[in-house]
Amino acid sequence: MSTNSLSGADVRAQARSGLLTGPTCGLAPDYLQANIVILPERLAGDFLRFCEWNPKPCPLLEVTDPGSWEPRNTAPGSDIRTDIPKYAVYRHGVLVEELTDIAHLWRSDLVTFLLGCSFSFESAMQRAGLPVRHIEERCNVPMYRTNMPCTPAGPFAGPLVVTMRPLTPRQAIEAILITSRYPNAHGTPVHFGDSTAIGISDLDRPDFGDRVTVREGEVPVFWACGVTTQVVLTQAKLEIVITHSPGCMFVTDQLA
Amino acid sequence: MSTNSLSGADVRAQARSGLLTGPTCGLAPDYLQANIVILPERLAGDFLRFCEWNPKPCPLLEVTDPGSWEPRNTAPGSDIRTDIPKYAVYRHGVLVEELTDIAHLWRSDLVTFLLGCSFSFESAMQRAGLPVRHIEERCNVPMYRTNMPCTPAGPFAGPLVVTMRPLTPRQAIEAILITSRYPNAHGTPVHFGDSTAIGISDLDRPDFGDRVTVREGEVPVFWACGVTTQVVLTQAKLEIVITHSPGCMFVTDQLA
Repeated sequence: MSTNSLSGADVRAQARSGLLTGPTCGLAPDYLQANIVILPERLAGDFLRFCEWNPKPCPLLEVTDPGSWEPRNTAPGSDIRTDIPKYAVYRHGVLVEELTDIAHLWRSDLVTFLLGCSFSFESAMQRAGLPVRHIEERCNVPMYRTNMPCTPAGPFAGPLVVTMRPLTPRQAIEAILITSRYPNAHGTPVHFGDSTAIGISDLDRPDFGDRVTVREGEVPVFWACGVTTQVVLTQAKLEIVITHSPGCMFVTDQLA
Repeated sequence: MSTNSLSGADVRAQARSGLLTGPTCGLAPDYLQANIVILPERLAGDFLRFCEWNPKPCPLLEVTDPGSWEPRNTAPGSDIRTDIPKYAVYRHGVLVEELTDIAHLWRSDLVTFLLGCSFSFESAMQRAGLPVRHIEERCNVPMYRTNMPCTPAGPFAGPLVVTMRPLTPRQAIEAILITSRYPNAHGTPVHFGDSTAIGISDLDRPDFGDRVTVREGEVPVFWACGVTTQVVLTQAKLEIVITHSPGCMFVTDQLA
């Protein structure tokens, strides 16, 4: 079976069985993939407001009832404790372990947030014949902290983190139209061109991910990034937060 | 009566009576305005193909039957010979006269083309709170010949002419989305940023219209322009072509 014909449920089953423990990029490309944040109910209200107020980095797909491990709307029958290839467990802002199963850590007060990720719009860009440089160069998308603050909520605050994809102006115009159709996957870019205007001093030194080539005639185009959430959660130093490991997403049943 | 409450028919009646002999910019802003090209039937097929092949500079709203002076679809009951404030008459590529009425020049072989103009999307930009610099600075939009050739058809060939509006990247992203909803008014931009990439050496010296201020943090954004048609028609040196005078458009009954 080609990876292209996998469904969201197929990928989740592979993760649940332990067959898949790595990145989900390119798997089940027709299905919406999600960033995952699991935190105690006591902070869920604040985090929900943070998502509502910062929809570009944190497009909220679903939030579960406290204690429920089933994202009922986007992946009915799934189990958020087992269906992700790899989890990252943070305590007091520090990554303490990476696991392929978190059933033993589950608590009745944990709330799960599913947030859209950029894989969906990258597939759409590729279908339109637009280049996605980090895919071409087989590396991670370059990510940068900006000088644009998110709107804070409770303990959640921090700078917007952005991804960068180089495009010609003509391609960028098309990419803006395409990504506008994916508000659940960060939507339109937040900036293009002069990177210093948003506090990025050196494009060749991303804060996360890898450097990619910007060719003659191309401009850097910047989109809000889900890693914003990771930075904000780390700074909040919560007793416990569980997320997916970078690139190892939860694949839903929703078509992208 | 405020100019904002005028209908397309009101503006046409004012032009027909001789009350209005100047630009239609800002008049009847809810209605689609059109560039007008009137030429002999013998060349109408070539020009129609030129429009079809170059829809961004030449968005075709309507073409009339030979000899008919009524654009039946977009302004039923109107008379193209009298309902434009001012006409420009070209013979062999040379502007020979400007008139407020062309009834005496009418021939049974004349075909009228109505092409969309940028007034519609400028209104939409303003409603969205985006700046339109040449309106702010009370001058004509700057226009530039580019190094991008139109797709030729018969005797019709020439460079794409573009208009320029300065915007911040964030405003440009919004303007791209807004103008994408107006394919009949030149649609999305064709370029932004480095003007030399499209053959414009000096932004401060437009080929037509006026220079406008590009502020710190803004980039020039370029849209296809109806003046492309004027350049192409002049170069084709037809026996006779009649157009609207610059800025003195035909106002239709269609809502913009």
